[in-house]
Amino acid sequence: MSEYGITSRAKDFSQWYLDIVLQAELADYSPVRGCMVIRPNGYALWERMQRALDEMIKATGHRNAYFPLFIPESFLKKEAEHVEGFAPECAVVTIGGGARLEEPLMVRPTSETIIYHMYAKWIKSYRDLPLLINQWANVVRWEMRTRLFLRTTEFLWQEGHTAHATPEEAEEETRRMLGVYRDFAEQWMAMPVYLGRKTDREKFAGALRTYSIEAFMQDGRALQAGTSHNLGDNFARAFEVKFQDEQQQWRYCWQTSWGVSTRLIGALIMAHSDDQGLVLPPRLAPLELVVVPIWRSDEERGRVLAYIDEIAGPLRGRYRLHVDDREQFKPGWKYSEWELKGVPLRLEVGPRDVEKQGAVLVRRDTRAKAMLARGEIAAGIDAALAAMQRELFERALERRQGRTRQVGDYAEFRRLLEGDNYFVWAPWCGASACEERVAEETKATIRTVPFEESQGFSTPGAPPPEKGSCLACGEPSPRAVLWAKAY
Amino acid sequence: MSEYGITSRAKDFSQWYLDIVLQAELADYSPVRGCMVIRPNGYALWERMQRALDEMIKATGHRNAYFPLFIPESFLKKEAEHVEGFAPECAVVTIGGGARLEEPLMVRPTSETIIYHMYAKWIKSYRDLPLLINQWANVVRWEMRTRLFLRTTEFLWQEGHTAHATPEEAEEETRRMLGVYRDFAEQWMAMPVYLGRKTDREKFAGALRTYSIEAFMQDGRALQAGTSHNLGDNFARAFEVKFQDEQQQWRYCWQTSWGVSTRLIGALIMAHSDDQGLVLPPRLAPLELVVVPIWRSDEERGRVLAYIDEIAGPLRGRYRLHVDDREQFKPGWKYSEWELKGVPLRLEVGPRDVEKQGAVLVRRDTRAKAMLARGEIAAGIDAALAAMQRELFERALERRQGRTRQVGDYAEFRRLLEGDNYFVWAPWCGASACEERVAEETKATIRTVPFEESQGFSTPGAPPPEKGSCLACGEPSPRAVLWAKAY
Repeated sequence: MSEYGITSRAKDFSQWYLDIVLQAELADYSPVRGCMVIRPNGYALWERMQRALDEMIKATGHRNAYFPLFIPESFLKKEAEHVEGFAPECAVVTIGGGARLEEPLMVRPTSETIIYHMYAKWIKSYRDLPLLINQWANVVRWEMRTRLFLRTTEFLWQEGHTAHATPEEAEEETRRMLGVYRDFAEQWMAMPVYLGRKTDREKFAGALRTYSIEAFMQDGRALQAGTSHNLGDNFARAFEVKFQDEQQQWRYCWQTSWGVSTRLIGALIMAHSDDQGLVLPPRLAPLELVVVPIWRSDEERGRVLAYIDEIAGPLRGRYRLHVDDREQFKPGWKYSEWELKGVPLRLEVGPRDVEKQGAVLVRRDTRAKAMLARGEIAAGIDAALAAMQRELFERALERRQGRTRQVGDYAEFRRLLEGDNYFVWAPWCGASACEERVAEETKATIRTVPFEESQGFSTPGAPPPEKGSCLACGEPSPRAVLWAKAY
Repeated sequence: MSEYGITSRAKDFSQWYLDIVLQAELADYSPVRGCMVIRPNGYALWERMQRALDEMIKATGHRNAYFPLFIPESFLKKEAEHVEGFAPECAVVTIGGGARLEEPLMVRPTSETIIYHMYAKWIKSYRDLPLLINQWANVVRWEMRTRLFLRTTEFLWQEGHTAHATPEEAEEETRRMLGVYRDFAEQWMAMPVYLGRKTDREKFAGALRTYSIEAFMQDGRALQAGTSHNLGDNFARAFEVKFQDEQQQWRYCWQTSWGVSTRLIGALIMAHSDDQGLVLPPRLAPLELVVVPIWRSDEERGRVLAYIDEIAGPLRGRYRLHVDDREQFKPGWKYSEWELKGVPLRLEVGPRDVEKQGAVLVRRDTRAKAMLARGEIAAGIDAALAAMQRELFERALERRQGRTRQVGDYAEFRRLLEGDNYFVWAPWCGASACEERVAEETKATIRTVPFEESQGFSTPGAPPPEKGSCLACGEPSPRAVLWAKAY
């Protein structure tokens, strides 16, 4: 347990995670079963993530819209796999305005059905395609075991929904958005991910195939951080989403959907934070810099604050910055608090800094200190922010590499995963039964099946295709897939 | 009916409104009773409104957060007036994860109860006050008669919730946020509003008092565009929201809540639009400018588009701009479409403009045309955007003044409101029974009771206090209040 009341990762990773979420005031438990409250510190982080991702989604031609929270029960039933996957987790409204409803309404667990009902109305001609829409919304899935951010009954997310004239375009879109998620994870969250295909056991209920980005958490577990589904024409047939082609022939559309959620906040925490609290990549941090004045007398206080006013003025327009001039707390206490809350940089300014016309810049992640002359402060901040963003990614990659193994033999596989967690590349024949058996015996599931070179998309970091024998049944395996225990 | 399929305002105002919403693709009906779909054009407008208002809310010291969609039934019952007002309009979840719930969950109609339950947990000391939080969320109220944007079962809104140490601070906050709403309505929406207090009959269920901004629609009806509630200590007592003051005494907090919703989009339409379609104030328009090329041959097309490329380049970073180079539509068709969709300015560029090195700028609202030389285009756009923003406000104010009357006599009041709609200043004694009677007999309700000069806030446009006799009962009235039929 650190001085801040945070359990160490080594002692209890799960408790460490909850301590950070609660102590940094990112979220809190609510009185509603499985639902969380996202507190201002957590929501400010979500807003930064939302804004960055929203721009990327718009830059790829999508527009935002909003569809109803409620879905008639009959809609969910139109796609057979879909209802089987989602109906058991639904919250159901049976009373409205004091009267029993004739048809129950499901609180959306995902919006394919209600959205594609509208698409069937809007799409008439090939000229209406592609239709590229995204929605930011809350969704509800009745989860049995919940954990703040990672798995909650209600969560916030975006869900993209597109319709295309050809299966090729739909596949291209599915991969394009997977690429957007990878870029967001790597460039903004500083979190390396593997991308590839999910097995049938793990794919979205109603999809032809699902791709995902899989992130490595510091305890060696995997976290599915975003999914992109090629829906084929499954939903188009169920909801009659059709268009007239240039020859006036009616054809079914080809569709995709893709989403990421507030779960990403959990991923961010488990990818970078340490035993002192939250560590955030600078690009996503709501505050980039906190300025902490140091004084021992009122006279010093006046001088230090006047100096800070001078130097902070020009920095304000440039950085997301806060001056912590509270009188009731000592500098050391403030340092700890801002470390806990994950502000990337701290600028310490005391009487000696005023004399020397400088300041001390401290990085949250490495605690590296730099004495800066007054004229160098902005350049020092720029350099530190850029270095921290880059190095967080590099350290996350190193951690993942240090915990990644390649094995061809089930005995070794079981030994590895018995007492600990690893990312393991190991052969698989392609049968769900084998995946099922390994999952039951080891708790590890297949996180991703790498893209083949010929699929025009690669899975960096995956071992090259090599024939092997399936872990479970010994039948031929064309290449190793990634196994891990997952959140 | 105009050439665009829009009913004229004079013929049928209500149909005109719906025609605009549907033809401009702002929203659509959904298969779920009373719920709408906000289409990309409408949602882009909401995003602009949201961003502007969000900045104003943050600039006044509030932070965003997110609370659960569901509220336990028992919570709603803790404040007596509140449950009476809201329980009948609730959608109720009775089944979750396949099983009947022990306690039904209400889909939030407003979030005071669930939020103040959390405040009771978070607030310990006077140092935690004021607590200033805002939430952007969806809410559900089971409405009997719905109309796109104006009244829908589900709608989007923001709800601010604050807690203070003294009743004075709570009152100040309630008025501050009313002022923010007025500024937003007037400066962004170009929509003049009256501000003042609601009568007990119209106040928020559970509030001590409610203030509102009331806008004038082109048909002479009023629309309540935003409300700000002083909740007193009603909810604090119901939810035990208490703090220790500097003398370690436990005291109840004083609270406020305030909100505006997607209803504002309906207000915006009815305040400014015309028989050709949507008219938007430039500051809120998702697109400020559309460039329409004119050509009669491929050769002309090439020349015109090359010229547009040159002139549009430097404009792109400066304006929200779209070049409509579709080949299948003629310029006149495009003009009509962009007028319908409410883009404030149109830049027409044909072969003669290329020769003369200029362009023609047309305003959506007045259709005023300006021939601009190439070097004057940006300045011309700036001037037209500013003039249009200002003049929309002025015209809305003139319209309101033209339809505002002051009467002291009930016979005249009834005659006025029999065949038409007016804003009427008329005396009222303060009794709910009188308000009720007038409402039943004329459909007009009291929209606002003006602020007294002594209340440190004024109601510009209200007649000065003058003693009179109540319309309904003849008893003394201290000053006239504003009556109108309302949306």
